[in-house]
Amino acid sequence: MKKIKVSVIGATGYAGKELVKILMNHQGVELIHLISSSYAGKNIVEIFPEFLNKLDKKLINFNLDVVSQDSNLVFTALPHTVSMDVVPELLKKGVKVIDLSADYRIKDPAVYKEWYEKEHNQINKGLLSEAVYGLPEIYLDKIKDALLVANPGCYPTSIILGIAPLLKHHFVEPEGIIIDSKSGASGAGKKLSLGLHFAECNENFKAYNIIRHNHIPEIEQELSSIYFNENTHKQKQQETEIKVSFTPHLLPINRGILSTCYLALKESKEEEEVLEIYQKFYQKAPFVRIFKPPNLPEIKFVTGTNYCDIGFTIDERVGKIKVISVIDNLLKGAAGQAVQNMNIMSGFPETCGLV
Amino acid sequence: MKKIKVSVIGATGYAGKELVKILMNHQGVELIHLISSSYAGKNIVEIFPEFLNKLDKKLINFNLDVVSQDSNLVFTALPHTVSMDVVPELLKKGVKVIDLSADYRIKDPAVYKEWYEKEHNQINKGLLSEAVYGLPEIYLDKIKDALLVANPGCYPTSIILGIAPLLKHHFVEPEGIIIDSKSGASGAGKKLSLGLHFAECNENFKAYNIIRHNHIPEIEQELSSIYFNENTHKQKQQETEIKVSFTPHLLPINRGILSTCYLALKESKEEEEVLEIYQKFYQKAPFVRIFKPPNLPEIKFVTGTNYCDIGFTIDERVGKIKVISVIDNLLKGAAGQAVQNMNIMSGFPETCGLV
Amino acid sequence: MKKIKVSVIGATGYAGKELVKILMNHQGVELIHLISSSYAGKNIVEIFPEFLNKLDKKLINFNLDVVSQDSNLVFTALPHTVSMDVVPELLKKGVKVIDLSADYRIKDPAVYKEWYEKEHNQINKGLLSEAVYGLPEIYLDKIKDALLVANPGCYPTSIILGIAPLLKHHFVEPEGIIIDSKSGASGAGKKLSLGLHFAECNENFKAYNIIRHNHIPEIEQELSSIYFNENTHKQKQQETEIKVSFTPHLLPINRGILSTCYLALKESKEEEEVLEIYQKFYQKAPFVRIFKPPNLPEIKFVTGTNYCDIGFTIDERVGKIKVISVIDNLLKGAAGQAVQNMNIMSGFPETCGLV
Amino acid sequence: MKKIKVSVIGATGYAGKELVKILMNHQGVELIHLISSSYAGKNIVEIFPEFLNKLDKKLINFNLDVVSQDSNLVFTALPHTVSMDVVPELLKKGVKVIDLSADYRIKDPAVYKEWYEKEHNQINKGLLSEAVYGLPEIYLDKIKDALLVANPGCYPTSIILGIAPLLKHHFVEPEGIIIDSKSGASGAGKKLSLGLHFAECNENFKAYNIIRHNHIPEIEQELSSIYFNENTHKQKQQETEIKVSFTPHLLPINRGILSTCYLALKESKEEEEVLEIYQKFYQKAPFVRIFKPPNLPEIKFVTGTNYCDIGFTIDERVGKIKVISVIDNLLKGAAGQAVQNMNIMSGFPETCGLV
Repeated sequence: MKKIKVSVIGATGYAGKELVKILMNHQGVELIHLISSSYAGKNIVEIFPEFLNKLDKKLINFNLDVVSQDSNLVFTALPHTVSMDVVPELLKKGVKVIDLSADYRIKDPAVYKEWYEKEHNQINKGLLSEAVYGLPEIYLDKIKDALLVANPGCYPTSIILGIAPLLKHHFVEPEGIIIDSKSGASGAGKKLSLGLHFAECNENFKAYNIIRHNHIPEIEQELSSIYFNENTHKQKQQETEIKVSFTPHLLPINRGILSTCYLALKESKEEEEVLEIYQKFYQKAPFVRIFKPPNLPEIKFVTGTNYCDIGFTIDERVGKIKVISVIDNLLKGAAGQAVQNMNIMSGFPETCGLV
Repeated sequence: MKKIKVSVIGATGYAGKELVKILMNHQGVELIHLISSSYAGKNIVEIFPEFLNKLDKKLINFNLDVVSQDSNLVFTALPHTVSMDVVPELLKKGVKVIDLSADYRIKDPAVYKEWYEKEHNQINKGLLSEAVYGLPEIYLDKIKDALLVANPGCYPTSIILGIAPLLKHHFVEPEGIIIDSKSGASGAGKKLSLGLHFAECNENFKAYNIIRHNHIPEIEQELSSIYFNENTHKQKQQETEIKVSFTPHLLPINRGILSTCYLALKESKEEEEVLEIYQKFYQKAPFVRIFKPPNLPEIKFVTGTNYCDIGFTIDERVGKIKVISVIDNLLKGAAGQAVQNMNIMSGFPETCGLV
Repeated sequence: MKKIKVSVIGATGYAGKELVKILMNHQGVELIHLISSSYAGKNIVEIFPEFLNKLDKKLINFNLDVVSQDSNLVFTALPHTVSMDVVPELLKKGVKVIDLSADYRIKDPAVYKEWYEKEHNQINKGLLSEAVYGLPEIYLDKIKDALLVANPGCYPTSIILGIAPLLKHHFVEPEGIIIDSKSGASGAGKKLSLGLHFAECNENFKAYNIIRHNHIPEIEQELSSIYFNENTHKQKQQETEIKVSFTPHLLPINRGILSTCYLALKESKEEEEVLEIYQKFYQKAPFVRIFKPPNLPEIKFVTGTNYCDIGFTIDERVGKIKVISVIDNLLKGAAGQAVQNMNIMSGFPETCGLV
Repeated sequence: MKKIKVSVIGATGYAGKELVKILMNHQGVELIHLISSSYAGKNIVEIFPEFLNKLDKKLINFNLDVVSQDSNLVFTALPHTVSMDVVPELLKKGVKVIDLSADYRIKDPAVYKEWYEKEHNQINKGLLSEAVYGLPEIYLDKIKDALLVANPGCYPTSIILGIAPLLKHHFVEPEGIIIDSKSGASGAGKKLSLGLHFAECNENFKAYNIIRHNHIPEIEQELSSIYFNENTHKQKQQETEIKVSFTPHLLPINRGILSTCYLALKESKEEEEVLEIYQKFYQKAPFVRIFKPPNLPEIKFVTGTNYCDIGFTIDERVGKIKVISVIDNLLKGAAGQAVQNMNIMSGFPETCGLV
């Protein structure tokens, strides 16, 4: 396997750290620069003692020339609205970019502005159409040739994978979709806040961002695209697009997302028929596992892995189908999926370096 | 305050223990017998060392004559289908009963049989119409005169209180109600099982009993009664009754339930108007607290208390209202509510002994 | 019961909040001012929604005249080195003070300076001899007449109570005492830090401040005083004082301390003889419970209570006695003990308002 | 790498499951039989859904002929006192055995009988001298040629590795050693008990088996051997052997052990000198990492890995050295170490398949 040279910008956040852990053992990767504005000058072992005897590397400040000259591919694990200041410059220098922020996920810059309160400049607007939404189970072919991949959000990954087959086959109504998601605390990142202070978060459970969570436009964009068919979709008027009722909750565990999705069946279906469309839809997807009813996935089945596990049940009493989908928010919901995208972009086996 | 004599059958389960903790400090109660078939002969301090220096009492086996002769009121904290063997005998002896099982909650014995797989005998069938569903915020007047109170289930308490005002005022459609509930592990009781073994349950999250949870008939009976009006309700045909899509989940915490309820608004409403009907509905309810949007309750706000905290938000994008309701499953969801019922039945202040 | 007027300075920290929760239900207390520099101007319900419908009070900034004029007794729940700026002024105004910081616990100002890196001014030096160390099980009589009580630290409370009888009776050697303590995360207070960020602290366990924890001088002062006899103690030279090897650890739970103490028996003892001296030592102490071997206390037995539970075992193979002592760090380790002291100072029953 | 054929007896316990997870990805291993008396006949995916798409293998009952004929090496992950019924037969058939129970760890059968209450038969007595105590950092050369390895206990691994260099170099007194250990709940195994029921174990902390934990003889045997020198040791009289004061505690986390060890320094030492003997002692040990003071290891640094991380500090005030040692109890404390032993016995790189 010919190695590519890879750097990580934002290497000391939770997603960045997972990237480093995967990349340092990846057979196709030579790990070059670890960029961290917070800890530049320190060795990564000083920040994460668990790297002792495993990785001996200094964290550095971002320098465009250095990073772009030494790297074939860069992961940008930066906050939303910050990535878009860096990504165009890396691309201009001929470096491939996998961006873990939301900055290139939303195709319509007006929608992005509405939810993230920042406007794309002209160059970034242009990049929106080039950027490929990095969900390999949906966009495998596009990712192969992508120069810029917008790595999906954690909630959207669990939700889109969870219900895509039902929408694709028009088994369910596009209206009235309800998604009740629960995420472990690492999903909120490393930034300190009272709500994430141990004695506040432990033995507690709560909903948050109950009306406006900025993953909503991403979820709706992709679900609409799947249901209405991507090509015809662009002509559709806004009213025909899928709108979901989404509620995120904070679980007192470190890692993992479980999304419970409620959809109305267009007509009565047997479990076997549904199982079949799921299995077919994901037959070439190495990281999606379908559970045969009445088995259901649990968060612990995927913790520490890049899997998305999906189960479902048909509630005939009310004509609904319930889908349960679980991922590790830091892996399939962030760093693992990013490496999966890198593998696809680089001609490596899709599962290389991932478990 | 004139004291009543009270015994607890099933004193060493999780709900039973909470009952003992409340009753032993209750100014209106003389705590007489603690019945436990598992630990009869032992002092309660041997089972629960935290009672040391606080309560010195032997656990005994059930003896109808002894218990009924010495007690004015008995709490039966027994498993479903077991209570109905004991309750009629206690009532016959002139003892008031607050039953924490599901055995007298469901008015229609055929429905009970369908969900609990046991048939009521003739005497118990007769008791079903006498038994009062012990949700004081709805049935205060009936509880005052009740001889037998069927203490509500934990999930039903959180859900019914959470959405009753919306149904009562016909602000929402009776169809398509979705309820996504999450409960701490004590809700599953003290019986050992691999799923509740610490290393299996900790750092995990899962849905369970996703199609058939036996709290569903209780929820649907009460919501239907509220929406269609109790009196006219009995004539209604089955088809007009409310059916809910209910999914319980297991939280890796000790105590607490959070229910997220999704309902379709019949017409657009302002938050203020909704807030008003909630405040009015619960103006005399000492244990229900309404949160003004955008504030929302969290489980920790009610842990260790008898409160039910309720918050809501209107999701105009999709025409839905989301309600968040939290309780401590062992208190407002079991022992606390049982004592609240005892207070009402005995002429004590409704909040006596409760926090 | 004649009510006293009480204010709390530092009402929104973890100990302060517990104080408010106890005091607002205390029959002998009229709760006057809640001082919080962080949240002055807000209602306490805005900071702690769990006070909704229970306490409706505005948080204010500290004003000496207002507080001293309106209060008979003030709890100062301020950081170490900050209390000493406020306490003398309150005392001068004739207000009794129970100080939860370490500022008046250490009798020797040079020792305080060594461990806390701040010097007492002349007035505060004078107060050191007046201040009574507020461990009621040792200093009951002095507390009765105290104007200033230095409320003990959480670790010291668990340790001193745990081994005082052994030292008092000279059953153990004063040298080589090892204390291995484990505390829940609330013991570290409300101040945000990465080590207390949920995803960092959860599923982890570590030792900290392993050489220099500032509770050591307090522990050694009191143990020495008990062993060498308080009166003769002052003449003793430094070398004869007890020195302990103390290691605190951080438990991923909200509340509670367990201290495991290892002491060398001077001569072989029967468990019964040891049990007897413990029971006698604490016969009038309502909040200390002695466990008969082989029973041992666990943290959950005291969570939410003001108890200190103590168990022990004699390890004949090595000639040592091991003592296990547990408290709730926020109650017997802080706010509960402070109220116990207030009760004693005010002529209330020692257990009033406490469980 | 030439593959060896490996089977696991006891494949569905916690250690057994970890063995399977490591072995199924081990380049030198062909995983043959998974024996489980509890779940024979089921596919491992039915018991552990996380193996879906990863391992498709039926669990079988133990059959000596089948297992011995098909395997070069067998891991026995059986309860204490049960292993000794199986191991001799496997050995007789020419199969190498790595036994995870305590049955071959204690060299003196009388001591084993005293602590485990079962007597070795003549064949097993004979095996005690052949069995090699499988701690590679101490017995590397012997393990290379071993036919039977007695895989160390979890607590002993953390403790022996933690303090071996100090004993070897006689830096510390052999008397008065105190070891205070804390283990996650998986250390207690998969067997259900009330103390490990989630709502009992969560938010709690306790000491257990405080006088007699059956890891003590193993710890004392090995520490004595290191201190007194293995060869001369056998002639030593019982009185000269090291006796430790050991207290295990139960942590409310899934995995990990932290041992805090207190030893008396024979004479004052500089940290650098101590650091040097540790680094030298473990210079060829790939899974031991020494932390330079004042850095200390935490459980999370080793969770999911085969590392033993060790830190220390010198407490000059009392002439003691404190050592903190952490491992993952299921890896370096069980399955990981067992695979490390297999690697050594089979001529594979010591770290093969382990992280």
